Amino acid sequence: MNQTQPYLQIALDSTDLSTALNDVHHVADAVDVIEVGTVLAFSEGMHALKTLRQHYPQHILVCDMKLLDAGETLAEMAFASGANWVTVGAAAHIETVRSAQRIAQQFNGEIQIELFGHWTIEDAKLWVESGVTQAIYHRSRDAQAAGVGWGEHDLLLMEQLSEVGLELSITGGIVPEDIHLFKNIRAKSFIAGRALANHDGNTIHDGKTIAREFRKQINHYW
Amino acid sequence: MNQTQPYLQIALDSTDLSTALNDVHHVADAVDVIEVGTVLAFSEGMHALKTLRQHYPQHILVCDMKLLDAGETLAEMAFASGANWVTVGAAAHIETVRSAQRIAQQFNGEIQIELFGHWTIEDAKLWVESGVTQAIYHRSRDAQAAGVGWGEHDLLLMEQLSEVGLELSITGGIVPEDIHLFKNIRAKSFIAGRALANHDGNTIHDGKTIAREFRKQINHYW
Repeated sequence: MNQTQPYLQIALDSTDLSTALNDVHHVADAVDVIEVGTVLAFSEGMHALKTLRQHYPQHILVCDMKLLDAGETLAEMAFASGANWVTVGAAAHIETVRSAQRIAQQFNGEIQIELFGHWTIEDAKLWVESGVTQAIYHRSRDAQAAGVGWGEHDLLLMEQLSEVGLELSITGGIVPEDIHLFKNIRAKSFIAGRALANHDGNTIHDGKTIAREFRKQINHYW
Repeated sequence: MNQTQPYLQIALDSTDLSTALNDVHHVADAVDVIEVGTVLAFSEGMHALKTLRQHYPQHILVCDMKLLDAGETLAEMAFASGANWVTVGAAAHIETVRSAQRIAQQFNGEIQIELFGHWTIEDAKLWVESGVTQAIYHRSRDAQAAGVGWGEHDLLLMEQLSEVGLELSITGGIVPEDIHLFKNIRAKSFIAGRALANHDGNTIHDGKTIAREFRKQINHYW
């Protein structure tokens, strides 16, 4: 895939597929990547992935499994159901990463390492040696709720990961005004969930307008 | 629950519910705990959990989500679908652990921390402070396949976790002959998957006989 600018990605994290289909319907034209979030995947199973693949054959489709074990079985299930990218938790044993990566290659797909827990740059080098090219830098939803913000520490780590050779997808309550923070990062994708849906809890807004604001910022900095 | 001996737990890790129902049917009388494995949960969604709850109203039911984020939403989904215990990955942010634990208390359920990645005894103390009483010591399936066995290092860590106050469920290619290794551990449950089903890849055997052998060993050492 020839990519000159970071992608825009919608994460679908509702507990039911009909809400997810409605959320993505409004902004599908404005996003490059559609993610079946962990919540939706656990709620509806691979049926959610298959249905989204049918509805959106041209989009990059991500299955956010954050898998930690059974790399071969889980990755095969997701890729066979239509995923292009599958996420693996950073805490997974390196053999699990390798198993998932082997399956990804068979399907011409990609593995993304989702950065949770006490991972190190040495781990990152092992992932790259295993053939992995992507990681997801994630400000935890629960950490956000507790008031933890983007900081110098995050950006430094992202730069180090870029240097090791990983492209980064960035997520965690990201808004268009944050985009400039990441201009020195090898950004693969910016992931937003509720901001791109037409609702955010009780607030009704136009996800398409937000998508355009994201795109404007991306165009400005890349 | 008044527990004097470790439980025996069957992990259902098939990709389809009908295989899982068949696997558990043969040994349900011989096990205390039924686990919807990550593979089955991602494949069939919460429908798998609800179906097993209907079929087995008296068993302890585990949903092995290994959740790393969205602790409240995911835990609520699993407990509301019939789970008694829900697993959280050790790499989860402590706020995620706390969120999941709050939900567990509302449902009179329990959280189990599944030990993957570079966790420390300091982390374990934080989990206990959050109200968590259980952890799962896990020899990774992919690590097993690569020939990594139970060792002194595992047992030492398990003793340290016991001392911190965590009861441990132990899993990862466990066979009845391994049970004696864990006699000094606060063992909550021994988890087996394919050994308790009536097949293990191409080998056909009687899961009920294996369950009896596990029980005999448990009775001998506790």
